[in-house]
Amino acid sequence: MIVANTDGAKQFITNTEEFKRVKSRAEVAYQQVLAEKGLGSEWLGWRRILRNPDKESLEHVESKASRIREEADLFISCGIGGSYLGARAVIEALSSPFRDEGPEILFAGHHLGGNYLEKLTEYLEKPKADGTAKSVYLNVISKSGSTLETALAFRVLRKWMHRTYGANAADRIVVTTGPHGGVLNKMAETYGYDKFVIPDDVGGRFSVLTPVGLLPVAVAGINIRELLYGAVNKFLECEESADDILEYASLRCAFQESGKVLDVIGSFDPELRAFTGWIQQLLGESEGKEGKGMFPVSASYSTDLHSIGQMIQQGKRNMIETFMVVHNPITGYQVTGNGEEIDGLDYLSGKSFHEINSNALDGTIEAHIEGGVPVFQIVIEALDARNLGELIYFYELFTAIYVYMLNVNPFNQPGVEDYKKAMFRKLGKEG
Amino acid sequence: MIVANTDGAKQFITNTEEFKRVKSRAEVAYQQVLAEKGLGSEWLGWRRILRNPDKESLEHVESKASRIREEADLFISCGIGGSYLGARAVIEALSSPFRDEGPEILFAGHHLGGNYLEKLTEYLEKPKADGTAKSVYLNVISKSGSTLETALAFRVLRKWMHRTYGANAADRIVVTTGPHGGVLNKMAETYGYDKFVIPDDVGGRFSVLTPVGLLPVAVAGINIRELLYGAVNKFLECEESADDILEYASLRCAFQESGKVLDVIGSFDPELRAFTGWIQQLLGESEGKEGKGMFPVSASYSTDLHSIGQMIQQGKRNMIETFMVVHNPITGYQVTGNGEEIDGLDYLSGKSFHEINSNALDGTIEAHIEGGVPVFQIVIEALDARNLGELIYFYELFTAIYVYMLNVNPFNQPGVEDYKKAMFRKLGKEG
Repeated sequence: MIVANTDGAKQFITNTEEFKRVKSRAEVAYQQVLAEKGLGSEWLGWRRILRNPDKESLEHVESKASRIREEADLFISCGIGGSYLGARAVIEALSSPFRDEGPEILFAGHHLGGNYLEKLTEYLEKPKADGTAKSVYLNVISKSGSTLETALAFRVLRKWMHRTYGANAADRIVVTTGPHGGVLNKMAETYGYDKFVIPDDVGGRFSVLTPVGLLPVAVAGINIRELLYGAVNKFLECEESADDILEYASLRCAFQESGKVLDVIGSFDPELRAFTGWIQQLLGESEGKEGKGMFPVSASYSTDLHSIGQMIQQGKRNMIETFMVVHNPITGYQVTGNGEEIDGLDYLSGKSFHEINSNALDGTIEAHIEGGVPVFQIVIEALDARNLGELIYFYELFTAIYVYMLNVNPFNQPGVEDYKKAMFRKLGKEG
Repeated sequence: MIVANTDGAKQFITNTEEFKRVKSRAEVAYQQVLAEKGLGSEWLGWRRILRNPDKESLEHVESKASRIREEADLFISCGIGGSYLGARAVIEALSSPFRDEGPEILFAGHHLGGNYLEKLTEYLEKPKADGTAKSVYLNVISKSGSTLETALAFRVLRKWMHRTYGANAADRIVVTTGPHGGVLNKMAETYGYDKFVIPDDVGGRFSVLTPVGLLPVAVAGINIRELLYGAVNKFLECEESADDILEYASLRCAFQESGKVLDVIGSFDPELRAFTGWIQQLLGESEGKEGKGMFPVSASYSTDLHSIGQMIQQGKRNMIETFMVVHNPITGYQVTGNGEEIDGLDYLSGKSFHEINSNALDGTIEAHIEGGVPVFQIVIEALDARNLGELIYFYELFTAIYVYMLNVNPFNQPGVEDYKKAMFRKLGKEG
């Protein structure tokens, strides 16, 4: 269950008449989504895949992932932006922060750093502790197949795979790409790589619940059926009523129109660090157009209170905050010990870290509201696959509604092309 | 060598008379630093330690670190904010992104997540691949000794160490704290832990060149003498002239006074991701006071072009950008292959990743300037300890001068206390 607690934000709304008008725009935006009549409505596949989940594709992903889990020591996900941020978000949220069972999962193709790629291939070469070679699987993820960062890394890694595994390389390379055309489809046909399809009507930052995200997440040992059907549940619920999303979108819109320029999106649960990065892309790339949008900053607490906390508390009063709050304890792990007055912490003995961390969260919210910052709390019942699935759809729908309220197309990213054009010109690419 | 290239920023200055006045304020601020007459001038120890480097302390750190490197499989740095961000920045910049020689370095005590701590202790328990137990060393870093996140993690980890190593635990625990008083000094005396001193006149975010940063960095196998004396060189150079820092500070100040609210600080070299996090704290915590300051956002490219790039290109025109640019190639690693038209990348065969990445950087800068964003480039001659040392002092001095120009004390952080007060009240701490 996901609940948007807007108490810490709503108190900053002073003009209630004006706010009623904003709320009515939220209702209009919601209806535009439902009726598929808004800007960029050809990109609503992220709703279609929940209305009619593709059971066959899900089973294909599950069986491939379970084979990879059995056989791989190392799984490389090669993609950039929406092609890896969602998978990374879910994997980091639900896996141990330290090496655990199952294949090690690494990312590549998300930048042009040669040192990283060189060191990665050295790492692949390095035998395991028992002296045997690592078993490596490679998943390249690119809808068009032509994204430079990913394509270059894939060239390097694919060559390594073919050199190392010879005729068997094809069994170890998986392509996730659009249904037709593009370089990756051609390669899958030529070399016999297994292929997963990114539907035409699903854009990159909305693609985590397609094989883009589902395959790496399943390889990490996470129940993707729970994840997907969590999202399906939230979808069905929101088809009936999305009141809290509309309220949240209205408030965020009111703040942006009253001059707030920053949304610091963070969590006191370090497990959600990458998840706030996923939200950063989802919101930022959707709303940051035509001179509009609030800049989304991703943060992890309490560590970042010791870097940006000072400015949140006493800098320019131009920001709002959004906290991802996990309600149920992830663990009951407690502070132990008694009679050790030497560290002065015995007053906390017997308390769980969850309780102490919750007090830090509440104290922070109190201090920041006192300091003039509107605060949203998005409360996730428990940190599990089902709730993360719900949270994913919650933010996808929120983004569509909120960005429609700005009269902006949430589903394109024309500005991302600009650096690419200038880069390709400098690289001497023809055409 | 560090060079501030301000060409992409200066072209946005239209009022040259006004800018001359800003520049004269930079000169005043610089003189305030030199004369030790500015706000918070009791906190200028980050200059003193370069004027008179403490050779004895340096040797103590080096010998301790070299013993730890010989004996440890795992080294835990337990600290928050300025007590770990600098070390992490340097270690990530100069180490392989994958497990390499020497002890594994982990951070703890930088948040209140119980799951992380529980899983960390499980990881410590887990034998190595050869079945033998891990050899663990622990360094707790806190000037006051009372920072809650660090103190709680230290309680857990210290207990584990004493339980595991018995009478030998003291040899494996190192305390880095203020010269006198506080819980950690008491513990060092009681249990016989080795101790390193954080000078009284050095604040947390300016402490990376004290044992706070130097010990973990040395344990990572990095030459801290090069790092420290790189900073010393830059210090001596800037005592003579700091023209490029004054120009950079003047421009940043002019942008902030003309209404820019965000500084997106990033690098195309993924090695510098944590380094931009260190700058984020240094600047943010220094300038974010009295309703002033530009919010520092830390970014890593090209991956983040696929999240916040759209908004930088076409969102609100309220930001500036700062790129950390490594001039010399970190590696000559090249795109190989020929006649493989199937991936369409043969036009890049024979080019180094450094060259391609540089084209991406130049293309991005061109596109962003075209989109109305003033761009600074801080050019680092090479990614090595000496240059990072120079860069550290460059930013420390820059921060002092720039923040003085805002008439703000760069060296305190009164706002960070607010969440702590509210938290401790909720936790029922007395006094």
